[in-house]
Amino acid sequence: MSAAGENLKINSERLWESLMDMAKIGPGIAGGNNRQTLTDEDSEGRKLFQHWCEEAGLSMGVDKMGTMFMRREGQDANALPVYVGSHLDTQPTGGKYDGVLGVLAGLELVRTLNDLDIKTKHPIVVTNWTNEEGTRFAPAMMASGVFANMHTLDWAYDKEDAEGKKFGDELKRIGWLGDEEVGARKMHAFFELHIEQGPILEAENKEIGVVTHGQGLSWTEVTIIGKDSHTGSTPMPMRKNAGLGMAKILQLVDDIAYSHKPDAVGAAGHIDIYPNSRNVIPGKVVFTIDFRSPDLATIQDMESRLKTEAKKICAEMGLGISFEKVGGFDPVTFDEKCVSAVRNAAERLGYSHRNLISGAGHDACWISRTAPTAMVMCPCVDGLSHNEAEEISKEWATAGAEVLMHAVVEIAEIVE
Amino acid sequence: MSAAGENLKINSERLWESLMDMAKIGPGIAGGNNRQTLTDEDSEGRKLFQHWCEEAGLSMGVDKMGTMFMRREGQDANALPVYVGSHLDTQPTGGKYDGVLGVLAGLELVRTLNDLDIKTKHPIVVTNWTNEEGTRFAPAMMASGVFANMHTLDWAYDKEDAEGKKFGDELKRIGWLGDEEVGARKMHAFFELHIEQGPILEAENKEIGVVTHGQGLSWTEVTIIGKDSHTGSTPMPMRKNAGLGMAKILQLVDDIAYSHKPDAVGAAGHIDIYPNSRNVIPGKVVFTIDFRSPDLATIQDMESRLKTEAKKICAEMGLGISFEKVGGFDPVTFDEKCVSAVRNAAERLGYSHRNLISGAGHDACWISRTAPTAMVMCPCVDGLSHNEAEEISKEWATAGAEVLMHAVVEIAEIVE
Repeated sequence: MSAAGENLKINSERLWESLMDMAKIGPGIAGGNNRQTLTDEDSEGRKLFQHWCEEAGLSMGVDKMGTMFMRREGQDANALPVYVGSHLDTQPTGGKYDGVLGVLAGLELVRTLNDLDIKTKHPIVVTNWTNEEGTRFAPAMMASGVFANMHTLDWAYDKEDAEGKKFGDELKRIGWLGDEEVGARKMHAFFELHIEQGPILEAENKEIGVVTHGQGLSWTEVTIIGKDSHTGSTPMPMRKNAGLGMAKILQLVDDIAYSHKPDAVGAAGHIDIYPNSRNVIPGKVVFTIDFRSPDLATIQDMESRLKTEAKKICAEMGLGISFEKVGGFDPVTFDEKCVSAVRNAAERLGYSHRNLISGAGHDACWISRTAPTAMVMCPCVDGLSHNEAEEISKEWATAGAEVLMHAVVEIAEIVE
Repeated sequence: MSAAGENLKINSERLWESLMDMAKIGPGIAGGNNRQTLTDEDSEGRKLFQHWCEEAGLSMGVDKMGTMFMRREGQDANALPVYVGSHLDTQPTGGKYDGVLGVLAGLELVRTLNDLDIKTKHPIVVTNWTNEEGTRFAPAMMASGVFANMHTLDWAYDKEDAEGKKFGDELKRIGWLGDEEVGARKMHAFFELHIEQGPILEAENKEIGVVTHGQGLSWTEVTIIGKDSHTGSTPMPMRKNAGLGMAKILQLVDDIAYSHKPDAVGAAGHIDIYPNSRNVIPGKVVFTIDFRSPDLATIQDMESRLKTEAKKICAEMGLGISFEKVGGFDPVTFDEKCVSAVRNAAERLGYSHRNLISGAGHDACWISRTAPTAMVMCPCVDGLSHNEAEEISKEWATAGAEVLMHAVVEIAEIVE
């Protein structure tokens, strides 16, 4: 396997210009983007990407989920391609870099290889996964999930948006229903560059995150039943305050997550109080506990302790409690060789780096089930994402794209 | 002063029949009532009450807030009247007894005095206070508040409902704008019978609550500012979880209220989480703390400790916190002589009784600022009120009305 020389650098200005040009499609109202999946804006963004790729000599394949595969040929007719990419769709009030950076850095590395007339043994395929965000059609990472055989195609086609439009119909309407069977492609490896969407790299002043694991997730919806009663006329000992029960359980969740430090996390982002009136003691609270860890046994322990200890809290308070698992996926361990390629690339290029666990879900998490996979992360300002104010520096984008390129080229093998 | 004999009993069936007849006006959808203030149904209910009162020989006065004063003459031309009453308006999904029992028990006691040809020195005036509920036009206890000079008439007239209709315009539209100056009447005393709207009497198997105090109220809206961040990619020590801050403060509120047992209470019924998404750590929580106590110094201590200790909790968690007082009234101590008249009546009639502190606000709380006042309470099933399922037994209604009658007659003085 050949290692690319330290002098192999991307065209930083060209990458940035492409990011800014893509951001003109489906602009948001506050400097970010609204280019949700299977909208006219999504279609327009895809066409621009296709145009750029074809200019760079890539040939296109589109599968039945609308995922775009833009191929640069390799020198060995029998070698499986190295895939690289992410997603061009955005949140309704999304940023310019979430997903887009990973796709356009893939394009930029191909442009750079073209500029320098570098050939690789394995083909390189730049990928735009359909509907990573999952806000218009839940769940997230939909096309990569179908690709990895986590969901069926028909299940995805039947998903409806808030207006009742179906995924399958909208994919056809915008003109991006391809003919390839989903998941038929075999990959030599898959690499995804993504902004961190968390605060660690910026806080520690690191340019590169070498992603070793994807956190597993467990969502438990908790319902506490107390008794609606008047805040004035119900003596303290006669109350069945579901809100107070929820408060004690939120602290329990915090304690449980800290007991598995440093990698486990836990919190409730969703909390609904009923009847939510100033002078009525809450008779019901529904909230969702989000536990994550890169270790499956830890997730199972957190789920189990939540149930046991929350039941005890509620029993002591005369409250009813029930639990429903409403989401989850197992932790991901990325491929050792691919992760090493990322770490080697950062070392070779002289970028500061540290290992990271991906807290958010990414297409790479599903693809890791079917192919050797790794991820590169670059910092984002203040950890902010899924927000129009999402920001990165040109230097961070450059570092991320260069590390991605070196890792891809190490695995795709330069042909001298 | 004459004491009525133990043989002075109301007509239990007639009182119950009147309650059921009134409940036919503005029926709810689940067995209760929707007879909100200044609606056509309110007007119809008033007309039925007026008709009954005129049948009983009472003469009507109506003030500029629409409050109805139905007068039975006394024997002494110079004696101030003893007032008795409550309200006929209901919550949108209200019960058949909240307020209505107090008005119709006033009518029943007059009917009983008529039946037995009992005359009193002081006139007796049965009152229907406008807009006690305050759900259509906030705040609650509006007309009694203007009567007691807590609010001005113009302020009340300008209050708007959800459709932007003004109180003053709606009062005129339904035909119940009177010509009396509000608050011009002088009272010898005021008595209000009301269902408890709490669980104590039923739990202790008492027929009568002798209300000695009205709890004071303090509503503090608390805003905690943390930082929205991803539940997966934000390490525990870097979180600014406003939801967890709220949880700790809810426990603090509970501890503070218990430290002033047995009479003080505290809870949050209203809690709004932002952005309230399963995978976003809450960046903001707004909630309202409801503290009550019959003792002003206790309320002030609870408010002060809330601020000091909640600030400390938030400072330790890196959260911002601010407080806004959004409601409150001082505790009420009811008139000693009137309270004794209620207790004497319960004793004389052989009803089991205990002292109560009114946790909810009532017209009597405002009127106590302008006249000697007391309240009688009867149990309600499961403490349930502001709910169509609100229920009382005929026996409880009878006991409450009889105690009310005996207390009123003690103060109004039977003329032999």
